[in-house]
Amino acid sequence: MFGFENMKISSSDATKPVINLDQGDPTAFQEYWMSTKMKERCVVVIPGWELMSYFSDKTNVCWFLQQDLAEAIKALHCEIGNAATEERYIVVGNGSSQLCQAALFALSSLSEDKPLSIVAAVPYYSTYEEEASYVQSQLYKWEGDARTFNKPGPYIEMVTSPNNPDGTIREPVVNRGGKVIYDFAYYWPHYTPITHRQDHDIMLFTFSKIAGHAGSRIGWALVKDIEVAKKMVQYLTINSIGVSKESQIRATAILNELTKSCRIKSESFFEYGNEKVKSRWESLRWVVDKTGDKFTLPEYAQAVCNFFGKSSSTYPAFAWLRCNEDKDLEILLKEKYVLKRGGERCGCDKKYIRVDMLGPNKDFQNFLNRLLTINGSAASFVKMPKSDPNLCQTHNCNLLHKYFTSPQQWLSRKDSTSPRTLKRLAAQATIYSIWAERNKRLHEGVMATPEPVRDVILGRRNGKNFMNLMFCWSRHE
Amino acid sequence: MFGFENMKISSSDATKPVINLDQGDPTAFQEYWMSTKMKERCVVVIPGWELMSYFSDKTNVCWFLQQDLAEAIKALHCEIGNAATEERYIVVGNGSSQLCQAALFALSSLSEDKPLSIVAAVPYYSTYEEEASYVQSQLYKWEGDARTFNKPGPYIEMVTSPNNPDGTIREPVVNRGGKVIYDFAYYWPHYTPITHRQDHDIMLFTFSKIAGHAGSRIGWALVKDIEVAKKMVQYLTINSIGVSKESQIRATAILNELTKSCRIKSESFFEYGNEKVKSRWESLRWVVDKTGDKFTLPEYAQAVCNFFGKSSSTYPAFAWLRCNEDKDLEILLKEKYVLKRGGERCGCDKKYIRVDMLGPNKDFQNFLNRLLTINGSAASFVKMPKSDPNLCQTHNCNLLHKYFTSPQQWLSRKDSTSPRTLKRLAAQATIYSIWAERNKRLHEGVMATPEPVRDVILGRRNGKNFMNLMFCWSRHE
Repeated sequence: MFGFENMKISSSDATKPVINLDQGDPTAFQEYWMSTKMKERCVVVIPGWELMSYFSDKTNVCWFLQQDLAEAIKALHCEIGNAATEERYIVVGNGSSQLCQAALFALSSLSEDKPLSIVAAVPYYSTYEEEASYVQSQLYKWEGDARTFNKPGPYIEMVTSPNNPDGTIREPVVNRGGKVIYDFAYYWPHYTPITHRQDHDIMLFTFSKIAGHAGSRIGWALVKDIEVAKKMVQYLTINSIGVSKESQIRATAILNELTKSCRIKSESFFEYGNEKVKSRWESLRWVVDKTGDKFTLPEYAQAVCNFFGKSSSTYPAFAWLRCNEDKDLEILLKEKYVLKRGGERCGCDKKYIRVDMLGPNKDFQNFLNRLLTINGSAASFVKMPKSDPNLCQTHNCNLLHKYFTSPQQWLSRKDSTSPRTLKRLAAQATIYSIWAERNKRLHEGVMATPEPVRDVILGRRNGKNFMNLMFCWSRHE
Repeated sequence: MFGFENMKISSSDATKPVINLDQGDPTAFQEYWMSTKMKERCVVVIPGWELMSYFSDKTNVCWFLQQDLAEAIKALHCEIGNAATEERYIVVGNGSSQLCQAALFALSSLSEDKPLSIVAAVPYYSTYEEEASYVQSQLYKWEGDARTFNKPGPYIEMVTSPNNPDGTIREPVVNRGGKVIYDFAYYWPHYTPITHRQDHDIMLFTFSKIAGHAGSRIGWALVKDIEVAKKMVQYLTINSIGVSKESQIRATAILNELTKSCRIKSESFFEYGNEKVKSRWESLRWVVDKTGDKFTLPEYAQAVCNFFGKSSSTYPAFAWLRCNEDKDLEILLKEKYVLKRGGERCGCDKKYIRVDMLGPNKDFQNFLNRLLTINGSAASFVKMPKSDPNLCQTHNCNLLHKYFTSPQQWLSRKDSTSPRTLKRLAAQATIYSIWAERNKRLHEGVMATPEPVRDVILGRRNGKNFMNLMFCWSRHE
């Protein structure tokens, strides 16, 4: 019942530290905020005498919501076009988990029938079950899978879209006039195409999963009905007498920065974030493909994203990995010191696991390596990568394959299509990668996927000639 | 059932704005943090890339507790001597309300009998009842007054000492082997003498009421039993996935400052805070005395404070005011546009109200004025203050009385006991006060108590000769 119990498991093998991709800690995005351009931008300074009161705005239904944060939330939704904020009350919470519980409290308190049934279609976010059960409230009761739910009377359906854990685009499935709480934690353009502006009675958002600031514990709800908003505020008042003011002003600064730069291609977090998750998904799909028929990943349809103005796919913050053999995938990965959330926790079977796609680069890389070696499936591949014709099928490997036979000659030759700067960059990246790869295989027994090379190249994306060179590369390679 | 519903009531009389002393918003202390000495000291700077993870220390039972905060908490308790921190787990929460609920969850989850009875001796902190009831948990049940509680079986007793609302020093009253949650929100030397180091299984503290940072929503529990600590952490994990990191690092900076300066008399927050609440209590007692037998306030015994090293009384953060006539005091004060928490909310009768003693100076001052005029009780007094021989019984008024007959002569005379700087300061304060008082009576129809003069004098406490002059004054006046 306890989502974070996995985190303290340690490895008995010092050469293979535990990789914990269970909790969905979105630290992958930290590199964006540490980049030269962003580093100085969202610094928050708080003197000792500021933000001392419980109150932010006594005239607001949500009296502990900082007005600047409310404005920042509205501005970002307006710019991204992912949710309607007009004629709605904004309720801020200590993360969207607390808001979800506030909404359960509000809807069930206002309902005549109690306990109110709480359902979600399988596979669901495992925490919903915990949130609806842990205090054994008489106001509401967890009833599991929405698809098999047939109890008469009022109910609340949790709809997460894109869904956690499987990334699917969701709609309510019960459709018997019950209440719906929409969780749009991942309805942002780096994860999924923004196809329309969401417009529902209760919509939850979290600051954690937009740009990675999970430590701030900020979430917000957009609520149409004032009575529901008031009851949610009542819950938050009794539960924690509001929400940290420090986190609120920091979230304000960051959300304002996201809004300000979201249309500047070289600065936009959403452009960066989309590249990041897309690249990870490509690496994961590459590795899953390498393991033969052992695993499968969901496929996502393309759709036009109104924000990016082009067709795109969904790249969820979690991968919903299925083991095609009759095995408990969570245990299988635990043997490799990889911790994931098992499918059973999401109302599903043991063949599935939920993999955090937003962990640190190193953890994700190590996970791919261990996945490759699972049950010896890719052992032969690890031993003879050169003989595998598929090894060089990505952009970086194509480059390597094309020129490695006579690098010196290629580097010194002048031609009209490949500038020398590009050649040198490519050669440098290739040589460094081979050297690092050789060391890793020799000393650590692990093999890298193409992602690091891509990361090295993308790390130079803000350089003077980057876009020209990339354009040149994709045209002539 | 809702502690903050009072805050939006507005006055229909523009000349008499609503004074809200219901919620206990401790903004009175802001002036300390804004003083020249403190202003630059506890500034917290947070770059955009910091504090992004959910985790603070994965090896700690309370994995979301910043290690620096844990150290700061221990150091302050050690310096003040108010609580034992050895062999205890520190659990941080979004304020101590959330921690109280975490403790109820922990103790009841670990108990075989459910629901567990929750009790507190009348008058109790009204929020306990709300916290134990609002989600209608099947784990525990609010059973009201601990003194009349006679249900067999296990129970939890809430013990707040000094007590909110009445400031009394409390011990458990049931004493049948049940669990006790100690709330030591006010067991700090500015409120009450620190007579011994508290040493119990579960002790709650809040950052809000130490030095006034209620907006940060930080509280902590000192917990002996690891199983209880783990269950509390489980509650906080499901409830809000931990606690704002921004608030934690700010609390760290402030607590460290409190520790660092607590032995420097001219800088110590506790010296300042004690002066502040003591002065307010003296003003309130003066006003209550003026109203004849209409109201009474609790009396507190003197005790030696180990921290200050001298005998002192208790000056609670709330005043528990009793109306000696058969009237609903909350309604009586509402007619004067003064909002307080009524006694019924604390399990008591309507003759009592809880008055916040830590509100803004102006609100407190206005409250005293309106209290003086309640039911016309002090109307005659307001009209003829000069004829009241008691008016000049405080230090400032004594000074006025002694010298006002020949101020010019006194100011120019040299003598060995009263330096001219002191004389000039006293004269300046007196003349200014009389002028301001005359304007207020003439234009606003309200009368000030001695507090403003005292505040003016204390406002100069950091001046070069302040301590010498004060010493001189109290010796010779």
